[in-house]
Amino acid sequence: MIIITQPSVTDAQIDEIVARIEGFGLRSQVMRGDSRVVIGVLGSEDLIREKPFAALPGVEAVVPVIKPYKLVTQTNGDLPQPVSIGGVKIGSGQKIVLISGPCSVEDKEQIVKIATAVKSAGARVLRGGAYKPRTSPYSFQGLGEDGLRYLADARAATGLPIITEIMDTRDLPLLEKYADCLQVGSRNMQNFALLKEVGRSRLPVMLKRGFSATISDLLLSAEYILNEGNPQVLLCERGIRTFEPMTRNTLDLNAVPILKAKSRLPVVVDPTHGVGLREFIPQMALAAVAAGADALMIEVHHQPDRAWSDGEQALRPEGFVDLVGRVRQVAAAIGREV
Amino acid sequence: MIIITQPSVTDAQIDEIVARIEGFGLRSQVMRGDSRVVIGVLGSEDLIREKPFAALPGVEAVVPVIKPYKLVTQTNGDLPQPVSIGGVKIGSGQKIVLISGPCSVEDKEQIVKIATAVKSAGARVLRGGAYKPRTSPYSFQGLGEDGLRYLADARAATGLPIITEIMDTRDLPLLEKYADCLQVGSRNMQNFALLKEVGRSRLPVMLKRGFSATISDLLLSAEYILNEGNPQVLLCERGIRTFEPMTRNTLDLNAVPILKAKSRLPVVVDPTHGVGLREFIPQMALAAVAAGADALMIEVHHQPDRAWSDGEQALRPEGFVDLVGRVRQVAAAIGREV
Amino acid sequence: MIIITQPSVTDAQIDEIVARIEGFGLRSQVMRGDSRVVIGVLGSEDLIREKPFAALPGVEAVVPVIKPYKLVTQTNGDLPQPVSIGGVKIGSGQKIVLISGPCSVEDKEQIVKIATAVKSAGARVLRGGAYKPRTSPYSFQGLGEDGLRYLADARAATGLPIITEIMDTRDLPLLEKYADCLQVGSRNMQNFALLKEVGRSRLPVMLKRGFSATISDLLLSAEYILNEGNPQVLLCERGIRTFEPMTRNTLDLNAVPILKAKSRLPVVVDPTHGVGLREFIPQMALAAVAAGADALMIEVHHQPDRAWSDGEQALRPEGFVDLVGRVRQVAAAIGREV
Amino acid sequence: MIIITQPSVTDAQIDEIVARIEGFGLRSQVMRGDSRVVIGVLGSEDLIREKPFAALPGVEAVVPVIKPYKLVTQTNGDLPQPVSIGGVKIGSGQKIVLISGPCSVEDKEQIVKIATAVKSAGARVLRGGAYKPRTSPYSFQGLGEDGLRYLADARAATGLPIITEIMDTRDLPLLEKYADCLQVGSRNMQNFALLKEVGRSRLPVMLKRGFSATISDLLLSAEYILNEGNPQVLLCERGIRTFEPMTRNTLDLNAVPILKAKSRLPVVVDPTHGVGLREFIPQMALAAVAAGADALMIEVHHQPDRAWSDGEQALRPEGFVDLVGRVRQVAAAIGREV
Repeated sequence: MIIITQPSVTDAQIDEIVARIEGFGLRSQVMRGDSRVVIGVLGSEDLIREKPFAALPGVEAVVPVIKPYKLVTQTNGDLPQPVSIGGVKIGSGQKIVLISGPCSVEDKEQIVKIATAVKSAGARVLRGGAYKPRTSPYSFQGLGEDGLRYLADARAATGLPIITEIMDTRDLPLLEKYADCLQVGSRNMQNFALLKEVGRSRLPVMLKRGFSATISDLLLSAEYILNEGNPQVLLCERGIRTFEPMTRNTLDLNAVPILKAKSRLPVVVDPTHGVGLREFIPQMALAAVAAGADALMIEVHHQPDRAWSDGEQALRPEGFVDLVGRVRQVAAAIGREV
Repeated sequence: MIIITQPSVTDAQIDEIVARIEGFGLRSQVMRGDSRVVIGVLGSEDLIREKPFAALPGVEAVVPVIKPYKLVTQTNGDLPQPVSIGGVKIGSGQKIVLISGPCSVEDKEQIVKIATAVKSAGARVLRGGAYKPRTSPYSFQGLGEDGLRYLADARAATGLPIITEIMDTRDLPLLEKYADCLQVGSRNMQNFALLKEVGRSRLPVMLKRGFSATISDLLLSAEYILNEGNPQVLLCERGIRTFEPMTRNTLDLNAVPILKAKSRLPVVVDPTHGVGLREFIPQMALAAVAAGADALMIEVHHQPDRAWSDGEQALRPEGFVDLVGRVRQVAAAIGREV
Repeated sequence: MIIITQPSVTDAQIDEIVARIEGFGLRSQVMRGDSRVVIGVLGSEDLIREKPFAALPGVEAVVPVIKPYKLVTQTNGDLPQPVSIGGVKIGSGQKIVLISGPCSVEDKEQIVKIATAVKSAGARVLRGGAYKPRTSPYSFQGLGEDGLRYLADARAATGLPIITEIMDTRDLPLLEKYADCLQVGSRNMQNFALLKEVGRSRLPVMLKRGFSATISDLLLSAEYILNEGNPQVLLCERGIRTFEPMTRNTLDLNAVPILKAKSRLPVVVDPTHGVGLREFIPQMALAAVAAGADALMIEVHHQPDRAWSDGEQALRPEGFVDLVGRVRQVAAAIGREV
Repeated sequence: MIIITQPSVTDAQIDEIVARIEGFGLRSQVMRGDSRVVIGVLGSEDLIREKPFAALPGVEAVVPVIKPYKLVTQTNGDLPQPVSIGGVKIGSGQKIVLISGPCSVEDKEQIVKIATAVKSAGARVLRGGAYKPRTSPYSFQGLGEDGLRYLADARAATGLPIITEIMDTRDLPLLEKYADCLQVGSRNMQNFALLKEVGRSRLPVMLKRGFSATISDLLLSAEYILNEGNPQVLLCERGIRTFEPMTRNTLDLNAVPILKAKSRLPVVVDPTHGVGLREFIPQMALAAVAAGADALMIEVHHQPDRAWSDGEQALRPEGFVDLVGRVRQVAAAIGREV
């Protein structure tokens, strides 16, 4: 950690800063420039972290040198450690996995029908919401356990493992009964009670980036889960909030290569929520693959204009079939496969 | 609701849109302009809401006419309905309430000392975190129930009612045992399970605006709480995330008059987190009062450079005394009082 | 245009709004919903535009129906009209053009050397700044006309046409003497005097999106140039400003398919400034191609650690060679070529 | 400047970095922590600035210690140096100056009428646009020199000095003939050719913050003007672009105390464009005063619903009279006066 002092800092203040550093069992190194004094804090990062140096008299700014996350960066070899969703491995290097399904589970027939369609198009994991985080209390909130049951029916019918969202710490036992992977949604990315709870689950967790979460915030939220003992975390880029009104969100593909460079965790991209306009989802899906995504999550509905939520951004099954073909081409161009 | 059709819309598509509207038991009105057809959807707003018109062929955009929130706007008279925190009324029209205390409860002595100091300076509600939402799992996470006990000790010593944060639905019974007001933090503003849970509490709730929550999002989250039957909700502006790196957040005072115009709920401003730099908190506090805030929440610590969290943004007790004097002047200038 | 009235609107106010609409030679259509009155304004869009309906008593909001740009959307056939930079066509459908060169022209030897390297790697247009928009007045401001002369030397040596930035309306004659294409930089995207001036040039113009310009703003700035009679405009996505601190900007690839859908103009992507970190430029370049870009602009320097500006984001020539090979693969996968 | 090296940095790379630093005539100091090496660069800041250390092998990040602006911070005494607009001093410490007038000059009668009204209400400087930066080329672009002449007529009639916008370097002689203060608009805040040109004018310059300009960017743009020899610069906060759709912009009052702390330049706040909704302008104007603004700029029109631009955000003269009274009260509460 580097402490930059104010131009008006006194020698007594510098002495006090140094004394404080040494009082914490750390070492200091003072650097006197032409117009500013800088003090390095040396020693164990775990000791340095969280010390209130910024509040000391004479201090202008504190610059951390070490990144605040560590478990997300640990590696056991050259390749990222794959995460397994019911046997489907994500992040194993070459394979790109397609996760697909409707926004909400509406009834058994709907989810089985869509699961069958996306499976035959090439999807390997089924998504579907039984608990829906909705901005308005008057919007459809999901079918709850009935929805989970229908998802299990669709899994029985197709063999596709299931990813579905958890919204409440109390729901973990129920979710573990039905799901193969837990989704923590954007609005709960910093719901730390929930992160700790899913960190104690045996199921893998897909963590979606918050609307205005920095990449560092996302990695630290993943760190919460890993720190509780759950090693299976997927990071999902799904669009951030910017000033641009034409799209629902701004899918931030810059995050893909950066997350892959900064962590060992597989990266999923959700172009459906990222751009939010059906017409532009295919191009963003292809771009995500080119940027290095390990998996794509794409919403599909057989009747978007009768969907109970987000119909305007769901692909129709035939659109998904077409997209998968194009994804295969781009994947091959970068030495990967679907 | 207004449906704007695409330039290429066909008569058959228009007929289908109209048929769909009427199939929902709603009425339609078609308006043919020089270059575009617009279709009005008329009828009960509860029926119109959530219908997937945007996914219909030929539709370019859907423009809602009615705001999606309703309980937040209901009034029972000319003045906003005050919320009572242990007998201290916020939003009663003239009075501006000061809420103060440390970021985290550290031990009994600390919280009693600070509570005594802020009370004598003019604060009427005590804040202090026992459960702390921290970006990193390695940061201090709060003392938990011990912290709640120390808060209760400070209340016993000073008479100040307590506001403290709830982070997990399972903690409500415990929080209700100690607290006078529940705080839902920015990171949980769209934790809908938590909103529903506190909506069933007998305690008032202060709901902090999310980092990137629009004003409409904040009102809809308040609506969740009201919709569960809890009528006592305070809205808190505490800074939004922008591109500006010099401040911790960008305190958005525009939200103050807008929230007061769009809802009946009292508005609290938290300049401490909003700007995040001790030096600029007083000016932002005065500006918040001038903008119409009903209460201010200001962090105070007797030893900021030894605080366990956020020391760099805590005022010292003497700084708080000075600020309260200036707040009184500005309040008087706009016909209010502290 | 749709006028949404306030809940409290009176019949007299509605009559006044209707009278005002008709006084402008337009037609009106009143739609009375259960809780709100909406008034459609029909007639020539050129008459409707800019009328201050929003300021009329009783009006809550005004919703435009027609997009405010028109020349950018005009087509003369199925394919976008290609723009020609010294004979190199951009936007002709299949070909993806590589534009490359250093951030700043530093001397004759440097620019000739880099031009030679990027040409042999596959670049078809040379970029280089002689007039540099720098945040600080103390940063290197470019060599001015000397820089233009060195660019011309590099063109003579390699045959590559030149794109370079114009910053002042008074410089147009000088720029026209040396350049094959004018660049209007992000900071000048809404410098309307400059847009009008380059709109009267015989040279094509590459217009870079402003830091916080919406897609609609960008299209309207292009409209300024087209409206002055210059039909050759390229749109360039180069990153927007968001809350994310890890990247220099957030390259917004969502803009690529949207710009191509909303306009007939070719789209260039500049991943160098978009992400601003050398390590991640290749992935973003590939993603841009997959998203549909017609050209890429990539900064290359043979000695980045001795560059006079932006060295940390320049590729070395060997890195550029590698990237071009990968771009060719992805281009082929989507049916295009370099 | 502090250079943070990569975890994988080699001794040879550190030696090369040190050699490079010393080759520039600077000194270095190496600090070896437990897990990272940090190198301080010491010496004249003018030498350090702009060196491409970030592009050197083994470097992870470069942290500047000294702020990049210097003229904006120079003081000649305790109080900020006031700027004089035709004899009206802004920034002289106690006085808060009101600048008012319409968005656009429409004709002689309009501007004289409004000037007379705002003067009698307490305004001391007249604003009005003759050259208008408009997002669309089809919007009213201002009356040009005719508008300047009408402004001069209004000055003759009322004695109010004039501030008006300059959009093109070529217009300076014309503007200097009529105006008392030049306005550089938000869209031109980084039009460096224009900044240099007005830096050579004898007239004071009001520099409006760009939509997405950081506070540091704004100060550096002011530095451009000061660096050309013009000592009279006013900084104007007028709203930034955020994700919030309910307001035209987000007026960032945090910038007010920060700009006053970081620079010696007077600070003007423009709540009209900042919030963009007539109903909320008074509260934001009062908040700006409480936050420490030296002047307010407020748009007034006698017939907002017939204004040629921005009618929905103009106060009526009677609204302005009311606001001035309230501004006087808040100013008095903080020891200032109008």
